[in-house]
Amino acid sequence: MDDRFLLGGVEFGSRLILGTGGASSLQSLEQALLAGGTELVTVALRRIDPNTPAGLLDVLERCGVRLLPNTAGCYTAADAVRTAHLARDAFDTDWIKLEVIGDERTLLPDAVELLRAAERLVDDGFTVLPYTTDDPVLARRLADLGCAAVMPAGAPIGSGLGISNPHHIELIREAVRCPVILDAGIGTASDAARAMELGCDAVLLASAVTRAADPVAMATAMRHAVVAGRLASQAGRIPVRRHALASTPAEGLPTW
Amino acid sequence: MDDRFLLGGVEFGSRLILGTGGASSLQSLEQALLAGGTELVTVALRRIDPNTPAGLLDVLERCGVRLLPNTAGCYTAADAVRTAHLARDAFDTDWIKLEVIGDERTLLPDAVELLRAAERLVDDGFTVLPYTTDDPVLARRLADLGCAAVMPAGAPIGSGLGISNPHHIELIREAVRCPVILDAGIGTASDAARAMELGCDAVLLASAVTRAADPVAMATAMRHAVVAGRLASQAGRIPVRRHALASTPAEGLPTW
Amino acid sequence: MDDRFLLGGVEFGSRLILGTGGASSLQSLEQALLAGGTELVTVALRRIDPNTPAGLLDVLERCGVRLLPNTAGCYTAADAVRTAHLARDAFDTDWIKLEVIGDERTLLPDAVELLRAAERLVDDGFTVLPYTTDDPVLARRLADLGCAAVMPAGAPIGSGLGISNPHHIELIREAVRCPVILDAGIGTASDAARAMELGCDAVLLASAVTRAADPVAMATAMRHAVVAGRLASQAGRIPVRRHALASTPAEGLPTW
Amino acid sequence: MDDRFLLGGVEFGSRLILGTGGASSLQSLEQALLAGGTELVTVALRRIDPNTPAGLLDVLERCGVRLLPNTAGCYTAADAVRTAHLARDAFDTDWIKLEVIGDERTLLPDAVELLRAAERLVDDGFTVLPYTTDDPVLARRLADLGCAAVMPAGAPIGSGLGISNPHHIELIREAVRCPVILDAGIGTASDAARAMELGCDAVLLASAVTRAADPVAMATAMRHAVVAGRLASQAGRIPVRRHALASTPAEGLPTW
Repeated sequence: MDDRFLLGGVEFGSRLILGTGGASSLQSLEQALLAGGTELVTVALRRIDPNTPAGLLDVLERCGVRLLPNTAGCYTAADAVRTAHLARDAFDTDWIKLEVIGDERTLLPDAVELLRAAERLVDDGFTVLPYTTDDPVLARRLADLGCAAVMPAGAPIGSGLGISNPHHIELIREAVRCPVILDAGIGTASDAARAMELGCDAVLLASAVTRAADPVAMATAMRHAVVAGRLASQAGRIPVRRHALASTPAEGLPTW
Repeated sequence: MDDRFLLGGVEFGSRLILGTGGASSLQSLEQALLAGGTELVTVALRRIDPNTPAGLLDVLERCGVRLLPNTAGCYTAADAVRTAHLARDAFDTDWIKLEVIGDERTLLPDAVELLRAAERLVDDGFTVLPYTTDDPVLARRLADLGCAAVMPAGAPIGSGLGISNPHHIELIREAVRCPVILDAGIGTASDAARAMELGCDAVLLASAVTRAADPVAMATAMRHAVVAGRLASQAGRIPVRRHALASTPAEGLPTW
Repeated sequence: MDDRFLLGGVEFGSRLILGTGGASSLQSLEQALLAGGTELVTVALRRIDPNTPAGLLDVLERCGVRLLPNTAGCYTAADAVRTAHLARDAFDTDWIKLEVIGDERTLLPDAVELLRAAERLVDDGFTVLPYTTDDPVLARRLADLGCAAVMPAGAPIGSGLGISNPHHIELIREAVRCPVILDAGIGTASDAARAMELGCDAVLLASAVTRAADPVAMATAMRHAVVAGRLASQAGRIPVRRHALASTPAEGLPTW
Repeated sequence: MDDRFLLGGVEFGSRLILGTGGASSLQSLEQALLAGGTELVTVALRRIDPNTPAGLLDVLERCGVRLLPNTAGCYTAADAVRTAHLARDAFDTDWIKLEVIGDERTLLPDAVELLRAAERLVDDGFTVLPYTTDDPVLARRLADLGCAAVMPAGAPIGSGLGISNPHHIELIREAVRCPVILDAGIGTASDAARAMELGCDAVLLASAVTRAADPVAMATAMRHAVVAGRLASQAGRIPVRRHALASTPAEGLPTW
């Protein structure tokens, strides 16, 4: 089974993408990144002091992970575009996790500003990974614009609610050809496995690991969960039945 | 973190218990058992011809797994007790997975006959692992009788419905001190992870693997899922919140 | 559509059965009973002082409802049988809502003691309405014993969780011919409607009304909900589809 | 309890809004409208032949309901705006249910075109009732534009899936001050009751009634369900608890 994960033309061995927000210390973060086996880590530009970003960047370099700057905290397309350009200059990468927030309370994306920013950044040559709602129509629009993936929220950032609308994640999977990455809402390992089973190509999470009581244990759990969900999505699961099906039928036994 | 899994006085390295029913061939079964990393396998007595049980038993021996005979297909306590004794004689083990079925359509256990059989088999010196409903009162009765574990159904055998009533699995976890093993209903990897997160000590499944299109891939998925769920259950997950919690707060940033 | 509700040989116009526990005053209770339009009310024997039961019984009489004594608080078959006989003597009715509790924390029934008490009370000529788990095998046993209905818990008493395992309620509906009454767990109106849609013949609830901030409003809501669910269960609902079906197709329009 | 339902400055006695699509005959439709007690009915402009719209309009007039034209089948803002104007001319009403579809398969709205059309129609003096996704940010934008209500989909039109993401309906309720009307996805009565309990002011549905085996029975069910859910939402429901709360406590009994 060829099961490579290609994103923005780059092949990754891990389908678990981690965020750094919420980590209690750089040391804790480093251990969690290693435990999770991640190869791509998203960092808010504003989290890094461009003058002395040494600490966090050193950690990422030691862990051998690729940096994915994000535009967390931006509420307009203009602000997000500006932040993306700053990030490109500062970190020498044209990859950007695009967040354009519409609401302080839910931190859910603003569809209109998101599309506007995505269009502009694609034109500017970025590899755009937009954090979006679970709306399949909006996801298709983003994909049609040339985004490298679509990253629907399972639930509000940091909520730990899991995937509130699995049906919509499936509809997004049907609607686009680019990678689908479940981003936000994950609370525990089974949520991550479920995301993969619904057809996602990868999972992005931060708080579920960084704010867990034991971030290393949870990062390890997530690593296994993503592998489990991916394998299960490829393995051809049994259909759901309302009644039982004996695993040991009374008749027609094979004569082992 | 000491995380040994003790069952009936024996320590197991794997928390995934597999059944053999539904396998399309012995070869396929062997590969799935190895992929799942299981150390305990349940087999219906009636599946094994006592005269020439060579095939299946050879597989189990080669895989280095412990045999757990079961009483699948028994509808009364008397029948189940008789079957358990036959199994003890045939396989030289006093471990028994006790099934006393109450209904052909759902294959759910019959509470009364199950208790009757469990009491008798505990008295007869068996290590009794009863397949039970998700009723916490019945589970506590079985535990009080001296069963080595309680094994509630997540959903009807072979249904792939997952865990229909997660709340009851949690109530069972609170109600007994012995191991709780989720038995029946699992359809895919996230179900197994969830079972562990609900507090189960292990997961028992057959059809989800043996009847999957690719049993080896699904067995591997289940191995990872059980590890993921166990770790997550120990890692102190984040609480569920209705609204968002920014992973990158606008204020009070650590000056990394 | 003939839609009579026959229970124990008696025809009722209302499919909403109310309990009195949790009411803050007799006056509030009376208003709620009237608002709910109920014709059958269950009362714990121990709630009524046999010497001066006047207050509550007067209310029931004024409301024109039938009294259904219950054995709340009984933990053994012997205690429940004794309580049922006391109730028969005190209130001159052989109807009994049979509760045999197995667990203080969940107040879920004890399957073994429940069956034992039901058998005895049926033999003693009672019209037995057992509060049971949502186990379809146990429900069929109770029906086979001659109970006048089976009354599965949707969730623990007073929990307001609704119906934790709708699938099992459907399985019970398939397993027995006698009336199925959803008893316990209901928190709000949609829970009651759902119970009826799952095939229940009636709904029994107490706390959802008596402990609501506005018991009269909630009793009225429940009255409508039970009618709504019953009608919906008879109306042949549309099937569930994963994708859309235009209510106004682009082609083949009728030329109205 | 003052519980008037004001929409676009008009007071309605019923919170059930019906669509006409899918009805098998005008006679069946008329009976269903009467049974549902609705006072507002939405009709696709293209369903009515402007030359001989007599049949359907006669029915609506006989039923005494207000006509709400809709733009079903429009895929762009321009098309929807044009259709709205045609409807205004044809039916002498500036009320419009605004649908701008983004996807044939799901018939979910297109956020960008919807906003564009809504802005234009508000400017043109329409009372705009937009069918939208369950995105709280988009809903707030529509409300801020001056729409008379927001009408989120519970699930794809005609799917009968109910409310796929109850959490988002609650978030929309928190996000806007204008009426929230659950539009699309309803399959059965408990779905409608639940919508109201989540804080919706009204429910709009078509297929659930028109395509039911017995439309009159289902319309009646929906009428009761909406009343039930509304009352329940106002009655102060009991909190959800994981464990039981005895409705008849063993101690501290009132001495009735």
